Amino acid sequence: MSQIRIGIAGLGIVGAETARQIISSQDILSRRAGKNLKIIAVSARHKAKDRGFPLDDIVFYTDPLKLLDHDDIDVIIELIGGEGGVALSLCQKALQAGKHIITANKAMIAHHGFSLSKLAEDNNVTLQFEAAVAGGIPAIKILREGLAGNQIETVAGILNGTCNYILSEMTSSNSAFLDVLKEAQHKGFAEADPSFDIDGVDAAHKLAILSTIAFEQKIEFSSLSISGIRNVSDIDINYAAKLGYCLKLLGIAQRGGPAEVTMALISDDEQLALVNGALNAVSYSGAPVQSSICIGPGAGAGPTSSAVLADLIDISRGLANYPYGSPVDLLSEQKLASQTSKEQCYYLRIAVTDKPGVLSQISAVLRDHGLSIASMIQNGQSEEGPVFLVLTTHKCAKIDIEQAAEVIGNTDHVLDSPMVIPIFDKGFFS
Amino acid sequence: MSQIRIGIAGLGIVGAETARQIISSQDILSRRAGKNLKIIAVSARHKAKDRGFPLDDIVFYTDPLKLLDHDDIDVIIELIGGEGGVALSLCQKALQAGKHIITANKAMIAHHGFSLSKLAEDNNVTLQFEAAVAGGIPAIKILREGLAGNQIETVAGILNGTCNYILSEMTSSNSAFLDVLKEAQHKGFAEADPSFDIDGVDAAHKLAILSTIAFEQKIEFSSLSISGIRNVSDIDINYAAKLGYCLKLLGIAQRGGPAEVTMALISDDEQLALVNGALNAVSYSGAPVQSSICIGPGAGAGPTSSAVLADLIDISRGLANYPYGSPVDLLSEQKLASQTSKEQCYYLRIAVTDKPGVLSQISAVLRDHGLSIASMIQNGQSEEGPVFLVLTTHKCAKIDIEQAAEVIGNTDHVLDSPMVIPIFDKGFFS
Repeated sequence: MSQIRIGIAGLGIVGAETARQIISSQDILSRRAGKNLKIIAVSARHKAKDRGFPLDDIVFYTDPLKLLDHDDIDVIIELIGGEGGVALSLCQKALQAGKHIITANKAMIAHHGFSLSKLAEDNNVTLQFEAAVAGGIPAIKILREGLAGNQIETVAGILNGTCNYILSEMTSSNSAFLDVLKEAQHKGFAEADPSFDIDGVDAAHKLAILSTIAFEQKIEFSSLSISGIRNVSDIDINYAAKLGYCLKLLGIAQRGGPAEVTMALISDDEQLALVNGALNAVSYSGAPVQSSICIGPGAGAGPTSSAVLADLIDISRGLANYPYGSPVDLLSEQKLASQTSKEQCYYLRIAVTDKPGVLSQISAVLRDHGLSIASMIQNGQSEEGPVFLVLTTHKCAKIDIEQAAEVIGNTDHVLDSPMVIPIFDKGFFS
Repeated sequence: MSQIRIGIAGLGIVGAETARQIISSQDILSRRAGKNLKIIAVSARHKAKDRGFPLDDIVFYTDPLKLLDHDDIDVIIELIGGEGGVALSLCQKALQAGKHIITANKAMIAHHGFSLSKLAEDNNVTLQFEAAVAGGIPAIKILREGLAGNQIETVAGILNGTCNYILSEMTSSNSAFLDVLKEAQHKGFAEADPSFDIDGVDAAHKLAILSTIAFEQKIEFSSLSISGIRNVSDIDINYAAKLGYCLKLLGIAQRGGPAEVTMALISDDEQLALVNGALNAVSYSGAPVQSSICIGPGAGAGPTSSAVLADLIDISRGLANYPYGSPVDLLSEQKLASQTSKEQCYYLRIAVTDKPGVLSQISAVLRDHGLSIASMIQNGQSEEGPVFLVLTTHKCAKIDIEQAAEVIGNTDHVLDSPMVIPIFDKGFFS
């Protein structure tokens, strides 16, 4: 059996787990790969650390670019991370040198995927990044190959486990955002600087990749509308529950529509509403397949290395091809609509002082913006604190609800900018 | 662009939809396939029927074996169906003649998959059958390629849409089995002769295929334990709901354990419990991926043709390989355990006449078989009809609960054989 010779750049939790798997399951994985899998060299900051696998026969570098000096390496697995920097240099140079690249680096792929993919084509090697999106779900393979016969209309999902963990915990334990964030950091579910996760950037990286494959368009990361969960409140989670909804951070892209990462209310009886904790989910709909949804762990050493190993076996078997399904030059330019024209239902929570006439003022603003109310909850009177007026609207354009919310925020006796959250009603994803 | 030349055997709803898709989306599908997709010839019983696509440039046969006369056909799509007969002859001869085979025929693959796959290897062509399992979910590709880096421990799922539709309808409308079956037949969700579906045979075909790939073992169809939903009662569905469970027909195979199709109670907060109507679901667990679940339509023209088209594009791209992941000779012999030794919790419903001492008799039988009771419901007294005693047990061997049930069935004042259903508690699938 011939060999496939591997270099691994980055021995963090995913890199170390990938190396351990390749070494400890070598026979099984080599049988499936049809080639002997052999790690030639690795790079990491520190050699001394015990990572649970022997380094005896493996060349160790602190500089990942040294892996390029190995003519005997066929595949480099890039697990350093970061949009540019050394990860990007390594991948560019490796592809130019005729080495296959496997990466879990969603930031790099969301920003430089097209040029890297072109480089792979030009050098007759492949670039694979299944691990960049929802590790435990073969989300890219499902879309690119399993659903290749379809015109995909919508791809959506819960794409960030940290946010989903925080929202699930806030829901189940009735806790405030900052308390749960702190706990998540303590448990290792959130980074010390959680911005990329909680501001929706990480989910947007994944959405850019998925929507490119789904629509065969070069979706530019900069064209995505991105918001996160930083301003989430347990108050909204509670009202959502009363109305039969769950609050989730959703990435959603519709063919010819917008691609956005946003908090969303999802009907309690959708499969997505049951996706709790650090799980991810990806939902696909199109013709002729109708719709399907896959749920699994999105991050962590095991699920991510599972995706890396799948890419490695595909490459070994000769089953890896264009990462976006077609050559980059056959992808069309993006055709995204602005999300301002998208029509859907909205949730609106308004903090007011309990004075006569407030409801009348607010409903006049809604009327003036052409918005009609589907349901309303007003909690009991309060002489001191704010009273919340919670409304859901019928379908309306995002621009109308946003403008109405701005006017309402400046109305007498309204204490704060209203909270506006889009609603995805029952059946949207199926 | 070179051509890939196609013959389609069978123009039922799936065959006709596949042909329509290839013709109406030719540009898109050919771009993804990297080759021009062209239908050369088709076979069906009757030519006259309008199937929504033109037959002008396509050779028509009533005998599918005539497709073999075409040296200019690269791929034959077999959509005739049936375990043996003309479908099997066609596939054997086509593979021998160096033509690729795509099929949706789960009965044929469950019974003859290994020999057909070997024939494909020997003739340097591929046999692909993604459409044989859960059409709208790329269930085989996920397992064989997406999760190729894993040691899969359990593969399970809702593998028959007809049964799931019937059980869902019985649950939501509180109706009796035969009424819902009749309605399902009327709506086209069940065949005139529904035996293959409701007796669990169809689900078992799919389970045999999935478990072969999951465990890399030649799982023989004859070794599966198969029961269906023919004796389901809305009484059990109602009791299950009271206990926090849903009743589903489940296919489940555990590495080194049994492979079986059985009615099962699934905890209400499992994702599988939310899979209603004609949907299918496949759940995978193993290491290092942990577990994931995919849900989608399992049958029908659209979802099934989606799977056929995916196979066609893979073959055109050169991305199709061994259907079970490895050459057939590298699959090991099956290592299934008898399901009699499997330990799990059970639901037991016993119809009794409301006499003093009955409960004492029954609990003595359970004690004598080493079974301990986890919970019990007894409904109100009744002077005429039967009273139901519903128990759930702690974990026990199947053989013990079955022997106890037999003894209980022959006890005084017990009116019928008890209903015994295995329970899959919260967390089993995740």
